[in-house]
Amino acid sequence: MEQDLIERFRKIVGVANAITDQVLIAPYLLEERGRFHGKTPLLLRPSSCAEVSSIMQLASQTRTPIVPQGGNTGLVGGQQPDENGYGVLLSMERLNKIRCMSLKGNFAVVEAGVILQDLQKKVDEWGRFFPLSLASEGSCQIGGNLSSNAGGTAVLAYGNMRELCLGLEVVLPDGRILDDLRFVKKDNSGYDLKNLFIGAEGTLGVITAAVLKLFPKVKGKAVAFVGLHSPVKALEFLSLAQSQGGGMLTGFELMSKLSLQLSLSYNTCEKSPFEHEHEWYVLINISSLQGDDEALSVLSTILEEALNNAVIEDAVIAQSLKQQDFFWQLRESVSYAQKLAGGSIKHDIAVPIDSIPDFIAEAALIVEEIVPGARVVCFGHLGDGNLHYNITQPIGADPAVFLQLWSQMNHRIHSLVMHYQGTFSAEHGIGQLKREELRTFKSPVALDIMQKIKEILDPLGIMNPGKIL
Amino acid sequence: MEQDLIERFRKIVGVANAITDQVLIAPYLLEERGRFHGKTPLLLRPSSCAEVSSIMQLASQTRTPIVPQGGNTGLVGGQQPDENGYGVLLSMERLNKIRCMSLKGNFAVVEAGVILQDLQKKVDEWGRFFPLSLASEGSCQIGGNLSSNAGGTAVLAYGNMRELCLGLEVVLPDGRILDDLRFVKKDNSGYDLKNLFIGAEGTLGVITAAVLKLFPKVKGKAVAFVGLHSPVKALEFLSLAQSQGGGMLTGFELMSKLSLQLSLSYNTCEKSPFEHEHEWYVLINISSLQGDDEALSVLSTILEEALNNAVIEDAVIAQSLKQQDFFWQLRESVSYAQKLAGGSIKHDIAVPIDSIPDFIAEAALIVEEIVPGARVVCFGHLGDGNLHYNITQPIGADPAVFLQLWSQMNHRIHSLVMHYQGTFSAEHGIGQLKREELRTFKSPVALDIMQKIKEILDPLGIMNPGKIL
Repeated sequence: MEQDLIERFRKIVGVANAITDQVLIAPYLLEERGRFHGKTPLLLRPSSCAEVSSIMQLASQTRTPIVPQGGNTGLVGGQQPDENGYGVLLSMERLNKIRCMSLKGNFAVVEAGVILQDLQKKVDEWGRFFPLSLASEGSCQIGGNLSSNAGGTAVLAYGNMRELCLGLEVVLPDGRILDDLRFVKKDNSGYDLKNLFIGAEGTLGVITAAVLKLFPKVKGKAVAFVGLHSPVKALEFLSLAQSQGGGMLTGFELMSKLSLQLSLSYNTCEKSPFEHEHEWYVLINISSLQGDDEALSVLSTILEEALNNAVIEDAVIAQSLKQQDFFWQLRESVSYAQKLAGGSIKHDIAVPIDSIPDFIAEAALIVEEIVPGARVVCFGHLGDGNLHYNITQPIGADPAVFLQLWSQMNHRIHSLVMHYQGTFSAEHGIGQLKREELRTFKSPVALDIMQKIKEILDPLGIMNPGKIL
Repeated sequence: MEQDLIERFRKIVGVANAITDQVLIAPYLLEERGRFHGKTPLLLRPSSCAEVSSIMQLASQTRTPIVPQGGNTGLVGGQQPDENGYGVLLSMERLNKIRCMSLKGNFAVVEAGVILQDLQKKVDEWGRFFPLSLASEGSCQIGGNLSSNAGGTAVLAYGNMRELCLGLEVVLPDGRILDDLRFVKKDNSGYDLKNLFIGAEGTLGVITAAVLKLFPKVKGKAVAFVGLHSPVKALEFLSLAQSQGGGMLTGFELMSKLSLQLSLSYNTCEKSPFEHEHEWYVLINISSLQGDDEALSVLSTILEEALNNAVIEDAVIAQSLKQQDFFWQLRESVSYAQKLAGGSIKHDIAVPIDSIPDFIAEAALIVEEIVPGARVVCFGHLGDGNLHYNITQPIGADPAVFLQLWSQMNHRIHSLVMHYQGTFSAEHGIGQLKREELRTFKSPVALDIMQKIKEILDPLGIMNPGKIL
């Protein structure tokens, strides 16, 4: 990259925020799973929408690729420059203001670089609730959450990031600012542009701020771990819980026997909630606007009916906040626990909820055919049909050899997913990791429309190139 | 239109469904408010997605404009051909099958021509609930609901049609079929195309089917009419009702004193629920998955707290199903009642909820300035910030003279709405009626993107021309 161009970018954001020192840049290029190894000559850290606009104008004039990055927690390489080293990294971390909030209006205007957990805490102080919740909430940023249409555990009751957002401010690849910051739930004045940018992984523009919905504060909760026989029973239990709990059902996580075993071996200080093992487990979370008593009463009703009708085999209600946290910890640590068990081939899939039992049965046969002895670690957000269908190497096998089967395994499992009209990317997006899958499984008509949308918004192809399309 | 072309269209749908008899066509050209007077040489009534595809292929080859129409209940002329008489009318009424439904998966695949009320009833028979509810539900169709992103009274708890839809099947202007029928809540595999077509009023393609979300059946409800002092108090009451009722709060409708007076004079057989008049009223609806008892208990708690804190002045709880229906009838008949009071200039606006009191106060000054003595009939979905801010002529004035002020009044009121960062079309869309407003009030950047999207999907401009853009 020419020094002259670096100087021109430097003028926009100031010396301290146009970084070329590779030691300082290194953490931005580190990516959790270690799959992507991007390079960049320059890291820019703008502090305002106007600065982002100037950056994109200059990038557009000079055809400089720009790679926006939030908290760098994405799992598909969407926030990483590629290895050719031409892309400028655009960190949004200094756009970290909550511009305003309204208690009566139940919204907040939040800049892209605000860390999710910081927003959750602020909103809680205001006596409201922002429901998005992810394992990476301590470092992921709102802009990244929007660009990847983040999901997580609260989707069941509150929806994806898409549903939590009323409006956006976006800098287009040519530097123009689209002010689509809307504050009303009903607005039918023209085509919906907001939803184009949400989930586009920074390939159509740079989201700089958003209007986010706030909700009444949850005042109580009740959590139980439930043992049951099969995914079929888990679905019955879900149906029962939904019809009794409605909007109070805010978590419904499925875990296989092996998932819990691994998680328990990772959380060594604690014992299993159960005396006897079960084939499958569900973590159920009930929230109440009234308080713990109501939550417990609704949960008890659900569990009683489920036990009486032999839908579930056993249930343990958390007796303290600490035990509630522990139950959730058991769920959240499955993927960390997997690391201790060797190499894992991962899938982030969703199938229609009613197809889950058949999918799980058929997928197991595929796994056994490809790698006899491989261990299926199946867990996820059953209420959304979203399973993290991960496969851990056979005990004692060579991880490197096992991981060579990643593409083959993905292709077979994703083919089954598509047979059930599901998706090969439920939560994590496409990024660099799943571009091939997108070309294989997306309909040609949809791909054609996507390509044309990319061309009208980013005709020079400078906006996060090499991602999605 | 040349006879040869008519014959070619006739071959696709059969003689009985390619209608040129203007007597038979007439009802399709009648539009409720009588503002639009379209003409067409040909009405086509296809019965399948494949037929719609063939129609669009032929239309594309011959550059024939196509105007899709659902139940013909739209209020902005979006479903009407224009007066030059070149557009072929495409009625979706024969695509009226519910293709499948899943109780465990909580979804139904519904064709565009299914009437909303028919769907509601079917879903109810299955023991589930489809929440979309509109005054025109007896004749409006799912395709039109999607194309206009219909709202209605249940948006508060369940969202717009956009939120109720998981996936779409769309015939593009060139006849290609976009199969985007998805069945999962989480799907991050590429740009969101579904939301482009929802709310596009048939200008980007023809929606032929959709996957719609179903919900647990509501087992009980409680309804109250509440008298209160001002919009400020109504907002306080809303906040209280939300924090106590959460997802059980399924209706929160504001009505001004005059709105209720007019409605009562229209429903002559019934008396006002109140002994004394109040300045403002709220109709509040609580739904329960458990039954009437729970709904009543939650409603009572809310009303008690509101009365004790002087948030409201009086409240009447409906004592029977009949009285519940009557309360809703009072709300639903305001716009019919307005017709008896002379000419009305209408607005379908939304402003951020917290700005509603200021908006109502300032808008009243504008109305009085333009037409002294004009009567503001303000009512609507307060929980969504959506007001039907209608203005009825002064008593004894000439309706025709009053209605000549429509554009002037619209422009001033909409300018105020935009000052508050609201929208000039909350529910009804743009169609033909609000194209000028769109050009005036929409940002040039948004308009530019909309125009480019229109060009890539409909380069020949045959898809519902003259609407929106």
